[in-house]
Amino acid sequence: MGKICVLRIGHRRNRDQRVTTHVFLAARAFGASEGVLSGDRDEPVLAGIGKVADVWGGGFLVCYAADWRRFLIERKSAGWKVAHLTMYGEDFEAGAKKLGNKNVVVVVGAGKVPGDAYALADYNLAVTNQPHSEISALALFLDRLFDGRGFPHRVDGKLRILPNKCGKVVVRGQNR
Amino acid sequence: MGKICVLRIGHRRNRDQRVTTHVFLAARAFGASEGVLSGDRDEPVLAGIGKVADVWGGGFLVCYAADWRRFLIERKSAGWKVAHLTMYGEDFEAGAKKLGNKNVVVVVGAGKVPGDAYALADYNLAVTNQPHSEISALALFLDRLFDGRGFPHRVDGKLRILPNKCGKVVVRGQNR
Repeated sequence: MGKICVLRIGHRRNRDQRVTTHVFLAARAFGASEGVLSGDRDEPVLAGIGKVADVWGGGFLVCYAADWRRFLIERKSAGWKVAHLTMYGEDFEAGAKKLGNKNVVVVVGAGKVPGDAYALADYNLAVTNQPHSEISALALFLDRLFDGRGFPHRVDGKLRILPNKCGKVVVRGQNR
Repeated sequence: MGKICVLRIGHRRNRDQRVTTHVFLAARAFGASEGVLSGDRDEPVLAGIGKVADVWGGGFLVCYAADWRRFLIERKSAGWKVAHLTMYGEDFEAGAKKLGNKNVVVVVGAGKVPGDAYALADYNLAVTNQPHSEISALALFLDRLFDGRGFPHRVDGKLRILPNKCGKVVVRGQNR
């Protein structure tokens, strides 16, 4: 499997803070190794994700890119593929298959996405061509990219949950 | 396949409007037939979802239930199963298999979920035991409930998208 980077473009500090946070949390939980924010610079969002990765494990990196076009062009020239999730695109399952084990930047827009994002993407992919949420679209696309081999099982966090029938069991550290 | 109802509990009008809307949109897009809101009564959220269902097709119903405990007890006495999505629960894929083709209420909490939600649920299920989003958790759980047979293909909306490599193609009506 290649590396997955999730790029959130057009973030608006006042409106999108919670949804953008969910986008990056889903990215991390479902196997991306990197989250890149563009649009409004938003330190609380980046710090919040960084803290989650610290507490719950895994090496998820977050950073800010002022110029997302340049970021995409640089990644493309380094051999990465770009998949843009949009309700107007082609079938995401076929797209995930074509991407195979390449390094992929997954572009997730907030608000209206500029036309050149569509042109810069190698694939514009839709999860159902119906309106729902960039968070659910990302979750299902990452699931298919990993081809049902499941999600990373993290054991290096400061906290860890023991699955439970009817309650909450959280343990500290990794080998206790 | 049985019927799927998504019950959002603990909704807070000021804080959760957007995330709750995404929860219901994902519910509809991924095959639930019904969305039930509890917590703060929030007509704009219900009206917004109703409008999406009208424009994009499918028979998705939304309503408000002041007392979610009573709602769950009534559904259980009518033979429905209750699956509560929580990061503290057991593996969601095994849970989805056990639910087979039964009618299922999927409980999705906002904020801290009261303990009796765990007790009223037949299954408390986690999508990874890692923090992410109730929206991504719901999307993956519904996907597994439908067992990879794909999502409803709606052709009865006023608008419909034709999948496109690099742009937006929206058509009106169902047979044009």
